[in-house]
Amino acid sequence: MIVEMRTGAKLEEVEGVVERARSLGFGTQVNFGTQKTVVAILGPDTGQLPTDVFAVLPGVESVTRIMKPYKLASREFKTESSTVSINGIDVGSKRVIVMAGPCAVEGEKQIMAAAMVVREAGACILRGGAYKPRTSPFSFQGLENVGLELLRLVRKQFGIPVVTEVVDPHDVDKVAQYVDILQVGARNMQNFALLTAVGKSKHPVILKRGLSATVTEWLTAADYLLAKGNEKVILCERGIRTFENSTRFSLDISSVPVIKGSSHLPLIVDPSHPAGHYSLVPALAKAAIAAGADGLLIEVHPNPKEALVDGLQSLTPSDFARLMRELRPVAEAVGRYI
Amino acid sequence: MIVEMRTGAKLEEVEGVVERARSLGFGTQVNFGTQKTVVAILGPDTGQLPTDVFAVLPGVESVTRIMKPYKLASREFKTESSTVSINGIDVGSKRVIVMAGPCAVEGEKQIMAAAMVVREAGACILRGGAYKPRTSPFSFQGLENVGLELLRLVRKQFGIPVVTEVVDPHDVDKVAQYVDILQVGARNMQNFALLTAVGKSKHPVILKRGLSATVTEWLTAADYLLAKGNEKVILCERGIRTFENSTRFSLDISSVPVIKGSSHLPLIVDPSHPAGHYSLVPALAKAAIAAGADGLLIEVHPNPKEALVDGLQSLTPSDFARLMRELRPVAEAVGRYI
Amino acid sequence: MIVEMRTGAKLEEVEGVVERARSLGFGTQVNFGTQKTVVAILGPDTGQLPTDVFAVLPGVESVTRIMKPYKLASREFKTESSTVSINGIDVGSKRVIVMAGPCAVEGEKQIMAAAMVVREAGACILRGGAYKPRTSPFSFQGLENVGLELLRLVRKQFGIPVVTEVVDPHDVDKVAQYVDILQVGARNMQNFALLTAVGKSKHPVILKRGLSATVTEWLTAADYLLAKGNEKVILCERGIRTFENSTRFSLDISSVPVIKGSSHLPLIVDPSHPAGHYSLVPALAKAAIAAGADGLLIEVHPNPKEALVDGLQSLTPSDFARLMRELRPVAEAVGRYI
Amino acid sequence: MIVEMRTGAKLEEVEGVVERARSLGFGTQVNFGTQKTVVAILGPDTGQLPTDVFAVLPGVESVTRIMKPYKLASREFKTESSTVSINGIDVGSKRVIVMAGPCAVEGEKQIMAAAMVVREAGACILRGGAYKPRTSPFSFQGLENVGLELLRLVRKQFGIPVVTEVVDPHDVDKVAQYVDILQVGARNMQNFALLTAVGKSKHPVILKRGLSATVTEWLTAADYLLAKGNEKVILCERGIRTFENSTRFSLDISSVPVIKGSSHLPLIVDPSHPAGHYSLVPALAKAAIAAGADGLLIEVHPNPKEALVDGLQSLTPSDFARLMRELRPVAEAVGRYI
Repeated sequence: MIVEMRTGAKLEEVEGVVERARSLGFGTQVNFGTQKTVVAILGPDTGQLPTDVFAVLPGVESVTRIMKPYKLASREFKTESSTVSINGIDVGSKRVIVMAGPCAVEGEKQIMAAAMVVREAGACILRGGAYKPRTSPFSFQGLENVGLELLRLVRKQFGIPVVTEVVDPHDVDKVAQYVDILQVGARNMQNFALLTAVGKSKHPVILKRGLSATVTEWLTAADYLLAKGNEKVILCERGIRTFENSTRFSLDISSVPVIKGSSHLPLIVDPSHPAGHYSLVPALAKAAIAAGADGLLIEVHPNPKEALVDGLQSLTPSDFARLMRELRPVAEAVGRYI
Repeated sequence: MIVEMRTGAKLEEVEGVVERARSLGFGTQVNFGTQKTVVAILGPDTGQLPTDVFAVLPGVESVTRIMKPYKLASREFKTESSTVSINGIDVGSKRVIVMAGPCAVEGEKQIMAAAMVVREAGACILRGGAYKPRTSPFSFQGLENVGLELLRLVRKQFGIPVVTEVVDPHDVDKVAQYVDILQVGARNMQNFALLTAVGKSKHPVILKRGLSATVTEWLTAADYLLAKGNEKVILCERGIRTFENSTRFSLDISSVPVIKGSSHLPLIVDPSHPAGHYSLVPALAKAAIAAGADGLLIEVHPNPKEALVDGLQSLTPSDFARLMRELRPVAEAVGRYI
Repeated sequence: MIVEMRTGAKLEEVEGVVERARSLGFGTQVNFGTQKTVVAILGPDTGQLPTDVFAVLPGVESVTRIMKPYKLASREFKTESSTVSINGIDVGSKRVIVMAGPCAVEGEKQIMAAAMVVREAGACILRGGAYKPRTSPFSFQGLENVGLELLRLVRKQFGIPVVTEVVDPHDVDKVAQYVDILQVGARNMQNFALLTAVGKSKHPVILKRGLSATVTEWLTAADYLLAKGNEKVILCERGIRTFENSTRFSLDISSVPVIKGSSHLPLIVDPSHPAGHYSLVPALAKAAIAAGADGLLIEVHPNPKEALVDGLQSLTPSDFARLMRELRPVAEAVGRYI
Repeated sequence: MIVEMRTGAKLEEVEGVVERARSLGFGTQVNFGTQKTVVAILGPDTGQLPTDVFAVLPGVESVTRIMKPYKLASREFKTESSTVSINGIDVGSKRVIVMAGPCAVEGEKQIMAAAMVVREAGACILRGGAYKPRTSPFSFQGLENVGLELLRLVRKQFGIPVVTEVVDPHDVDKVAQYVDILQVGARNMQNFALLTAVGKSKHPVILKRGLSATVTEWLTAADYLLAKGNEKVILCERGIRTFENSTRFSLDISSVPVIKGSSHLPLIVDPSHPAGHYSLVPALAKAAIAAGADGLLIEVHPNPKEALVDGLQSLTPSDFARLMRELRPVAEAVGRYI
């Protein structure tokens, strides 16, 4: 951590910074420059130290953090890449894992049809929401318990692992009994009560990136899960909010190589939510694999025209089957397989 | 809602749109243009209808919503401005309500000193966090129950109403017994489980704007509270996330006149979080009142240098007292008082 | 164009809208809804009509544009995809065109070495800046005329087409005599004096996307070039400005399928500027090709450590050669070649 | 400038950084930390040094700039606030300077009527565009030379100073003969050819902030003008591009205190462009003065319904007169006058 003093700061102000650092157990080194005096705060845990601790002191102009605020999610903490194993399917391995299914569980017929479509096309994990956090209170909010029962049924019948979102910290243990992977949604990425509960559950979890979360904040949110002992964390890029309005969100494709460089956690990409329109999904799915993503989370619906939620961004069964065929050579072009 | 057909769309595709509208109980009017056919969907509740319902149909190019998705929070639903009364203090009246206090309750001495400072300077509501949602799991998370007890104590001793944040839906009833106003934080603006619980409590609530929430999404989140019967909703602008990095967030001052035009709910402004630095707070506080805000939510700490959270953006007691003196003529300049 | 009247708008206000439309030669159709009256403005050129023309009229609540403001760049204007031919190299064909070279021309030895590297690795167009628009006036601004002479020399010696940026409208004709392709930089995307001059020149041009330009504004800027008779327009996505700070800009990968759907113009991607760091360039380059880009514009420097501009985002010759080998299978995976 | 080495960086890599610094004339101080080695680069001009110079060296993880890249515009360069004097009207003094007028000069009758309105309401500088940079080539582009002649006429007849935008570097000297203040528009903030020409002219200039320019980039653009010897620079905040879509741009009100703290240049605010709608202009104008702006630039049109450009955000004469009356007490509340 680098503390820059104001031009003309007094010696006693510099000493105030040094003392504060020592009182917290950190070392210091002072550079008396020609214009500015700069104090370096030294020690292994300066990344977790709030910059305000020094910024409030008299004579200080600015404080710059050198070490990242996340720790357990970093590659410096764990050099080799992690994999999360779901019923023998390893997320983070050479195999690109495709998870697919409808946005919401709407009924037995629908979710069974979806499982059929997904499995036949070669995807290996089924997605489907029992709880649907919706922007408006007047929209369909999900089948809740009935949806969970249907997910258990389809999982048993098709032998396919299932992922679903959890939205209330007190539902975590219940939902974990029904599905193989929990999902923390984008709007809950910094719902720390929920993160803490999911962390304690030690159940595999997909942590979606918040709409306006930086990569650093996202990895720091992952630290909440890891700090509670849950190491089965899969990150999911799903687009960020920008000024551009031709798509629903802007897929931040750069986060793929950035995360791969700075974290050991596996990373998948949801091309459906940023696209907002089915016609854009294939291009984004291919780009994600080419950029190095470990998997995809794609919305597929047996009949998008009848979907209760997000029908426009859902692929039809035939479009999904074609996309799966098109993705295989892309995966191979970057040394992987589906 | 306006459905624009693709150039060259077939008559049967246009009819498909009309039929879908009718099946949902809406009227239609079709414009067969020279280049484009456009179908208007008519009816009182088209604002709550998802655009996807039509966008997925064959031959449709785009769907544009004319009516807003929020309903109960709108001025069309309720023309006259609402006020929220807290122990006889009316938020939304000619009086500009200043709420102030430390980011976190840190101990009895600190919160008592803060209450003294706040009251003496002329503010009328005390803020202080018992639960602190923090970016990193390694940061101070608040005193929790002990903090609540201290808030009850200070409230009784000073006779000043108190506001604190609630983060877990299952804590709502408990927290409501300790404080006069609940706060839903920016990172929880779309935590619908929490909104539903706070809505049911019918306890006065400050709904902070999400970091990347549009005004429309914010008012739609307010609809969650209102739909459960809680009419004591106070909105709080606290800055949005943009590319600008000289401040912590960008205070969206324009949201003040926009909200005043489109909603009946009272609106306050938090100048401390967007500023991120105490030196910028006075200018933003004055701007907020000049723009028409009904109140302010300001961080003040008896000793910012010792603050456990957000010390850099907290005003000292003397700075806060000076600011209160400077705010009064600004309030008067726009026909109000403090 | 859809004009929504205020609730309770008077009949004469509706008639005012209809009259204004007629006076401008447009047709109208009026929907008298139960709550809102909506007037559709009909005609082939409503996309070029400013919404303000109606929005200022009494009784109007909002005006929504249905047709896009760009015209000549749209697929509705020209259905089949355009190609731009540079010395027999077709941008927009099945061949993915790689343009590469240093950010700035720094001297004869450097640009000759760069051309050698670029050609040997299999790229077919050389980039190099003679004029460098720099954020600070104290930074290196380019070799200007000397740089142009060096580009002419290297182009002749290696027989390789050359692209360079032009920044002053009065330099367009001169620069066009030295190079095969002009470049309009991101910061000049809405420098309409420059666009007009480049349009008149009818010289092949790469139009980079502005840092905060929407896709719609970008295509409307292309209309400036097309309207002056220059049909040799190549679009270049180079990242947009967002809140994310782990990369220099956020590559908007979604713009590739969006542009391919809505415009006939060829589109290339610059992975170097959004990356800001050489280690991220390969992932973004692969993603761009997988998403359907017609080419790439990559920064390569014979010795990045000695580069005067943007050394950190420049690939070394060996990194570039390896990337070219890795890109070929990706191009083939999506049915193209390099 | 702080150079952070990678964990495990070799001694020779650290020495490479030290050597590069010395070769450029800078001093260094090396901190061998327990985990990371950090090299501080010392000297008076590190703000103007590109970070890439060190970032490209082997073993370097990141480079952080401590000093700002702008120099001449900074308060460290010039402590006392600057004023720009226009015919005896001092921008940057206790008087809040209101500049007002139509977006575009449309004809003699219109600009004369506008001057009358502006002067009668108490504004002291007239604005009006002769050259209009428009998003689409099919929109009205301004009267150009005829517009300049009309501005000279109105300036002579009313004895009121005039400001107009210049868009082509080769027009600067001509336009400077017609008007008292040149304006560099938001889309040209980093048109360095134009900045250089305006800098050389030494004519008073308003430098509008770019749509996606940080405060730091904006002040660095001001350095272009100052470096050419033009000290008559007035900054103008006019809103930035964000995700929010209820206004045309988001007025960054925080930039007012930020600029006042870090630069000596006077700063005005344009409330009309960010508002995009006349009804929002008064609130933003009051907020700007309350926050400490030195002036306003407001769009007023004798008859907004007939305006050729931006009619919706233009005030009518009576609305403008009322706003001027409302602004006076706000200015007085912050110790200024109009």
